[in-house]
This record gives sequence, C-alpha cells and structure tokens, in this order.
Amino acid sequence: MPRRSDSRQRMVRTAAALLRRQGYAATGWRSVVAESGTPWGSQAHHFPGGKEQLAVDAVAWSGEAFERLLRGALANGHPADAVEAWTRLGGAELERSGWRDGCPVATVALETAHDNDALASACTSAFGSWRSAIAEAIQARGVDEAAAQSLATFTLAAVEGALLLARAERSTEPLFAVGRHLSGVLRANVE
Amino acid sequence: MPRRSDSRQRMVRTAAALLRRQGYAATGWRSVVAESGTPWGSQAHHFPGGKEQLAVDAVAWSGEAFERLLRGALANGHPADAVEAWTRLGGAELERSGWRDGCPVATVALETAHDNDALASACTSAFGSWRSAIAEAIQARGVDEAAAQSLATFTLAAVEGALLLARAERSTEPLFAVGRHLSGVLRANVE
Repeated sequence: MPRRSDSRQRMVRTAAALLRRQGYAATGWRSVVAESGTPWGSQAHHFPGGKEQLAVDAVAWSGEAFERLLRGALANGHPADAVEAWTRLGGAELERSGWRDGCPVATVALETAHDNDALASACTSAFGSWRSAIAEAIQARGVDEAAAQSLATFTLAAVEGALLLARAERSTEPLFAVGRHLSGVLRANVE
Repeated sequence: MPRRSDSRQRMVRTAAALLRRQGYAATGWRSVVAESGTPWGSQAHHFPGGKEQLAVDAVAWSGEAFERLLRGALANGHPADAVEAWTRLGGAELERSGWRDGCPVATVALETAHDNDALASACTSAFGSWRSAIAEAIQARGVDEAAAQSLATFTLAAVEGALLLARAERSTEPLFAVGRHLSGVLRANVE
C-alpha cells in the first residue's frame, strides 16, 4: 500500500496533468481522485483548503518542473539554441498528446487571473521563474539587466503565444515559425 | 419590447463578454440569460444546439469584431505602428477592466481545443483571420507570401503571449516590452 505522502504527491501530479489539458473549471475532485488512484476522502485530508489548494500546489509543481528543464536547456549553450529546442520539444509534446499538452499554466492563468488571488499568484510565480531563468542566461552573456528582462519577456510571450496558436490550430507550424524568428532576435542581441 | 432578433444578438454579445472574462466551462446559460436581460426560455429558441452553439457564435462574433479593428489599424500606416498601438490599447483595456478583458478567444481555445471540434474550429477561424489581416498588410509592402505569413504568425503569437502574461501579472509591462521588440522586428523586415 502506498505511503500517505505518495498519495498526496500523486494527487498533485494528476491535478497538474488535468489542469494542463482542460483547465481549472473543468477539473473536479472526482476526476483527480479517480485518475490518481487515491482513496476517496484522502483529498480532504491532504488538501483542507479544497480544490483551490490542490490547484495552487499543482501549478507550483508544474512551474518548478518546467523551470528545471528550462534552466538545464539554457545551461548548455546560446539562449537562441535553447529557445529553438524548446519550441521543437513543445511541438513534439503537443502533437504526441493529440494537441492536449501545451503550457501547464496558461489555461489556469487565463481562467482565474481576475478573480482568484491564490491561483493568480501561483501562475504569476511560475511565469516569473521561467522569465528569470531566461533573463539570467541572457545577462550572463553580457547584456545589461533591463535589456535582458525585456528580451526574456518577449521570448516567454512569443513561446506562450505559439503554444496557444499551435494548440488551437493543431499544428506545429506556429511553434517552428516563432522558434526561427526568436532565435534570430536572440542571436542579434546576445553574444 | 425588444425584437426577437435583438434578443439573439444580445445573448451573443453577452456570451462573448463572459467567455472573454472567464472562459467556457465557467460560463452557464443562467448567467448569459441574466446578464443579457433576455427572457428565460429564449436561449432554447435561439440556440437549439445549446451552450456550444451560443459559444461558437460568440467566438465568431468576437473574431470578426476584432478583425475589423485590426484591419482598420493596419490600413493607416506601417504594421509596426499598428502593432504598437494594439499592445498599448490592449494594455489600457486590460487595466481598465481590472485585468479581466484580454484576448476574447484565447481562454476558450485553451480550454476546448482538444475535445470540442466546433469550438476549436471557431477559435482557429478567429486566429486565422487576424493572422491573415497582418500577413496581407505585410505582403502589401513587398514582402513575399511565405515570409509575410511567418512574420504574421510571430506577431500574433507574441501579442497573444503578452496579453496572457499581462493578465496573469496584472501589469501592462509585458505588452509594452513585446510592442517595442515586435515593432523593431517589423521595421527591420518590412519597408
């Protein structure tokens, strides 16, 4: 029988996968409990703050997991190469999942930004950590802080928008177009 | 007493506003009927295909309304100026609405792209019409079709991503950063 801490972690991972695919409003306790294989009742024990608390933890978990991937990619070369790899991998993941698995945070952010402070704050932290990872890699190559932040915002926005368009159009083409253009901008601005 | 056709149109506009703010899953018949001031029962008369049919019409209505705005802005000068104006106006609208009124299509697209063909198709048509408006303006200035399409995809993706980040962070800064960078890219590539 799995330990209690496993069951909490399984619920967080399952919620993260469901939030990524279908968003906050469409994700209910019942599906999280069923898909995580945890006993009914454990959700109330692990998440006394309800579905909102589970979603906050799931967004934070997704944010940290993706930050590690991104920092790994950025440590290995020019930011332009990391961004091209990101758009290629993002496209492959979307296509393999039947156009389901895009950005793990964007749907929840758009649904809840205006009226749920806890979830909005979790989404903002995730986006902020990704932007910082990109900005730090650019700054490490001699670009000043303000310009690095601005380029990192542009990069993150363009990739997020490309993931949105690719998902809506069920095509990797927007990701490839954005990857090519962004890598040109980054090569022109970063040593 | 309003004419029947008014009541259908009022429901479409009300649904468009609610879908923009909170997405598809969170928008119910009850709130559309209440906020549009139409009599209960009229929804079944006007939309025999249910909430999905109403949402498809609302997304199409939003898509066409925004396409007209965008074509108007693009007719008046260099695409770089139109895109900067778009990010400024988008930021002002977001801020004025308490960070509620971002892209009218993005939330529905992310929620439904994978499992609702009718809604996915309405969202894709809207994005496609905006991208065509941008591509045609770029092509009219002597850029070849493939390059114009690719630049238009990059432009739309970056603005969509900026609207997402601005909404999540409750700040106009991502829109201004993206407006500056995009306008530089467009000036460098379009006469």
